[in-house]
Amino acid sequence: MAKDQAEPLLHASRPSSDDSSERHVEEDDALLKDSTTRTSSRWNRYREIGLFAWALIATALVIILAVLYEHAESTTNNPPSDSPDNDHPTAPFAKRNLIFMVSDGMGPTSLSLTRSFLHQQESPDSPYNTTLVLDSHLIGTSRTRSTSSLITDSAAGATAFSCGLKSYNGAISVLPDGSPCGTVLEAAKRAGYMTGLVVTTRITDATPACFASHVERRDYEDTIAEQEVGLTHPLGRTVDLILGGGRCHFLPNSSEGSCRGDDTDVISLAQEKQGWHYASTRSDFDALGNGSNVQLPLLGLFASTDIPYEIDRRAQSDIYPSLTEMSRTALNALSAATGDSDKGFFLMIEGSRIDHAGHSNDPVAQVHEVLEYDRAFAAALAFASTKNNDDEGKAETIVISTSDHETGGLATARQLHTTYPDYHWFPSVLTNATHSSSYLSHQLREHVGSHVAASTDAMKTWIRNQLVEIGMGCYDATHEEINLLYSSAKGEEGSLPGTWLLADMVSRRSQVGWTTHGHSAVDVNVYASDWEGGRALRGSMENTDVGGFLRGWLDLDLGGITDDLKKALEGEESGWMGGKVEGESGEQGNEEGEDGREALDAYQGDFKRSKRSSCGCEDEFAAYHRVH
Amino acid sequence: MAKDQAEPLLHASRPSSDDSSERHVEEDDALLKDSTTRTSSRWNRYREIGLFAWALIATALVIILAVLYEHAESTTNNPPSDSPDNDHPTAPFAKRNLIFMVSDGMGPTSLSLTRSFLHQQESPDSPYNTTLVLDSHLIGTSRTRSTSSLITDSAAGATAFSCGLKSYNGAISVLPDGSPCGTVLEAAKRAGYMTGLVVTTRITDATPACFASHVERRDYEDTIAEQEVGLTHPLGRTVDLILGGGRCHFLPNSSEGSCRGDDTDVISLAQEKQGWHYASTRSDFDALGNGSNVQLPLLGLFASTDIPYEIDRRAQSDIYPSLTEMSRTALNALSAATGDSDKGFFLMIEGSRIDHAGHSNDPVAQVHEVLEYDRAFAAALAFASTKNNDDEGKAETIVISTSDHETGGLATARQLHTTYPDYHWFPSVLTNATHSSSYLSHQLREHVGSHVAASTDAMKTWIRNQLVEIGMGCYDATHEEINLLYSSAKGEEGSLPGTWLLADMVSRRSQVGWTTHGHSAVDVNVYASDWEGGRALRGSMENTDVGGFLRGWLDLDLGGITDDLKKALEGEESGWMGGKVEGESGEQGNEEGEDGREALDAYQGDFKRSKRSSCGCEDEFAAYHRVH
Repeated sequence: MAKDQAEPLLHASRPSSDDSSERHVEEDDALLKDSTTRTSSRWNRYREIGLFAWALIATALVIILAVLYEHAESTTNNPPSDSPDNDHPTAPFAKRNLIFMVSDGMGPTSLSLTRSFLHQQESPDSPYNTTLVLDSHLIGTSRTRSTSSLITDSAAGATAFSCGLKSYNGAISVLPDGSPCGTVLEAAKRAGYMTGLVVTTRITDATPACFASHVERRDYEDTIAEQEVGLTHPLGRTVDLILGGGRCHFLPNSSEGSCRGDDTDVISLAQEKQGWHYASTRSDFDALGNGSNVQLPLLGLFASTDIPYEIDRRAQSDIYPSLTEMSRTALNALSAATGDSDKGFFLMIEGSRIDHAGHSNDPVAQVHEVLEYDRAFAAALAFASTKNNDDEGKAETIVISTSDHETGGLATARQLHTTYPDYHWFPSVLTNATHSSSYLSHQLREHVGSHVAASTDAMKTWIRNQLVEIGMGCYDATHEEINLLYSSAKGEEGSLPGTWLLADMVSRRSQVGWTTHGHSAVDVNVYASDWEGGRALRGSMENTDVGGFLRGWLDLDLGGITDDLKKALEGEESGWMGGKVEGESGEQGNEEGEDGREALDAYQGDFKRSKRSSCGCEDEFAAYHRVH
Repeated sequence: MAKDQAEPLLHASRPSSDDSSERHVEEDDALLKDSTTRTSSRWNRYREIGLFAWALIATALVIILAVLYEHAESTTNNPPSDSPDNDHPTAPFAKRNLIFMVSDGMGPTSLSLTRSFLHQQESPDSPYNTTLVLDSHLIGTSRTRSTSSLITDSAAGATAFSCGLKSYNGAISVLPDGSPCGTVLEAAKRAGYMTGLVVTTRITDATPACFASHVERRDYEDTIAEQEVGLTHPLGRTVDLILGGGRCHFLPNSSEGSCRGDDTDVISLAQEKQGWHYASTRSDFDALGNGSNVQLPLLGLFASTDIPYEIDRRAQSDIYPSLTEMSRTALNALSAATGDSDKGFFLMIEGSRIDHAGHSNDPVAQVHEVLEYDRAFAAALAFASTKNNDDEGKAETIVISTSDHETGGLATARQLHTTYPDYHWFPSVLTNATHSSSYLSHQLREHVGSHVAASTDAMKTWIRNQLVEIGMGCYDATHEEINLLYSSAKGEEGSLPGTWLLADMVSRRSQVGWTTHGHSAVDVNVYASDWEGGRALRGSMENTDVGGFLRGWLDLDLGGITDDLKKALEGEESGWMGGKVEGESGEQGNEEGEDGREALDAYQGDFKRSKRSSCGCEDEFAAYHRVH
């Protein structure tokens, strides 16, 4: 039987080439004929050794080739990069961290504006290739319309990210029918991830609100505050770390610095009932030791409302931390807190005030906001890089960055005269400015208010010298411009806001154009730390596809969260969403349709009049748009 | 010595695990001790058979694994998709076709504008996901600055594509020192490819000019015409197929319809000296049989200057072919002509007048131009798809599409009043219009000119009823608007162009904003038919990288062309570039620096006055920007 087995093997593997010699055949035969002579004994011994060597070498080769093949296969088996609709990563990772960054209001032109500013500031004589860190991670663009308008707001925009669903302008993670939708942050928390929110505006503003609260109108910020810390949220506390501004919505209206409508002390209740650790000052922030000394859950509210624009904050860094500082602290804290867990974290970081600079049409404030956002993005990349180089291969971190919408209708070109324009814009004007228009306008009002006895001439001289020349770096203001600023500061009827006037002076000189103080509908960019990991985000997509990616990356079940949120609307605590109480109308409110849910994008025939009460400053608005 | 060799082998491979039994050790020893007993003889035989089987199986495994590994390696050895700076495709192809499309003046907002328009026109009640064909092929964005300005023009923009090098605004494939640079079209021709240019503007305009001519100023269009047909080009004829407009620069100024400065009959000379076949009418075009009946070289000039905007051309399709029709004809003709060649073709197709609509700030004209460009892109994709499915695997066709710059500072949002704006823009206004502002303005001038005896009231009634209501679909024009149009038509001093006024009426009502009648500096999109083939164009890049890709795809030597062009400046025919004769100043001209080559992007302190002679219509310009 042994022979029967051996022969087919031999036959199968015997070389069939013309080279096979008779001697080889004899050797084979001898092997099978059990020769016992002395010479054959010696021959047998060598033959056995040779056979053994052959077998061992072949076996070693098998092992080597198997290892090589295994390696080659694992390299090849990456999902094909031509299938961008695959939003589930296939490779197994022990732990996932998802850093989702939102550049609120940053459109395509914000990038070219900031890049040229940076070039002008750092190396005006060098060639053209100054780029941002973001630039080398561009992967796609996002289409942003909401259900109620072709032009979205931050609430509908962030709901597309948090729930992966379209909703109406003003919706905080609720659908057009008013029902709540589960968010990636809530689902991540339930799945065992740690969660965090880092912003430079109020933590109760639309973008962060959409990840950890549900209300029908974005201006229910008091309700949002309560939900975010888990006091009234049906799922309890879903956030582990909060860093940003917006303290006023957490303080009872009986205390100084509150902007709440009631006397609920959200901070104290958060500490007592949900165990939050609270930080509110720069020294509190510094005590966090760059994230190494954080006790979670941490509620860090470092400004009453917004943290100042970066260009203004730089001179007040003893009071306010920067976006990058807060981001690093959050990353280190969440990383440390999940060190022993088999789940990582979900962190949302927002460059909140790029949008505000757009609303003010202030290119100076905007470029510094974008640059700070770029630094925060770089910090997130650096963190991801460290994690992904982990020797144990335990962590896989991805950084995704996108915008909710563009703000301002920004253009790096502005025609000032009826003659055909030269093709220029002048970033040098922006490098001369030391403060935002918003900051300078505040200075102006303060100065006028505290110098009521000053003569008109003295006041105008101060405006020209201190405000316009030193503050804004503008040495060719016209008398008309100074007069407009003076009128605005005195609060004269029909005058425009000082912020608008100052921002327009710098925009006009730099030949930067704006078409609105609101949002616009242009597609926004999408960036990823990892070309392969982010492949589902390649090309052009809806903003809801970004939400789909977030869900897919962490493999989350949002439906279960939605079900639980809806159930909570039926029980005793059914009032948690804040009902339909009329809040203060936010500036982004719509008036067509109930709650703006059914606003129309078809022209209604009246372009001549604003439908809302006007400031009575139409003439000044005309002057503001006038050719000088 | 055999034993010495065998032992280390054995020792090395002997299992070191605790499982290795004494019997195994005995077997090993017996093998090496040359046992000759009867039992050991039988044992030896089985041992030898087992050894042999082992060796053979291992050898077979070696062969199988080696084949598998070889296969896996060849799959893995595709260039890593994370290295976008590799602009040389590595896979071998027998033939390459390169279709390079330029959407002149199409910025990011043109896409959201057109998408919303299409949605409004086709399915206003459907969900949000109306997209263009282009949208599913977005691969990156291009940074567009030139050497003379942060805001490029089409000449510097196309030089970046044609030569892969930055130059100054106005440069037609020459560098800042005035020396010519070899282009991809010229190098492709030399390498044995067929070449073609398809445009909807003058074939002597900047974009097509940059591929087949070299002059220091874009307004030397007479010289450009001569070079394009090979009359004065040092390399002779480099283009095989031309379809577009601009006939007037090819006719001697002694004949009707000429706009040349001299009496050179370029068409006749092209036919006589370079063998061109000439087509100039719609019936000529139809006789080309969709490309099946083309004799190359073919010079098809179907308009004196520009082919009308698509929205106007639709009603004159018996006179003018569309961009898509011309593109299909060119693709079929070039494909047929290279059927037996081992080289394919290079074809540049330009959607030329997206830019013109931007210059006029006319959103109606623009959306129809973008849609026609999208159709031409789809036609190119369909062609590429056919070629790439060739069973013989002979052809590899890629379609690349990008813009040279944005035009108009377009925004899909416009604030009309001082009150904070609602977040809307209204594409329905655009769907109501039947013609471009340019067309309607021409109608207005013609009507006024041919009705000089008509009363003012009759004229204004005609303007309101025929021009504004029927032509533009606008039924709520104010008296002031009608008066402005009337003044413009009468050529009254200080009046603005009718095109501007009409375009502003429709822009205002649709709440579409513009910041300039010139260009802007925002990044523009890059599209590719093939995600893998176009991978060097992924992410953010300089416009010169697009040129580098074109060169790399066809594996061309541009340096050799440049050398030959420079040599030609030394000989008897050294005047071929047209010298420094002052041409008519084009509207895109610069005045800072000699020939605009040293224009500065630093603010010079004077924003108040236009540096050039004004139309005296500053007051009307203010009114045009006024809040109504």
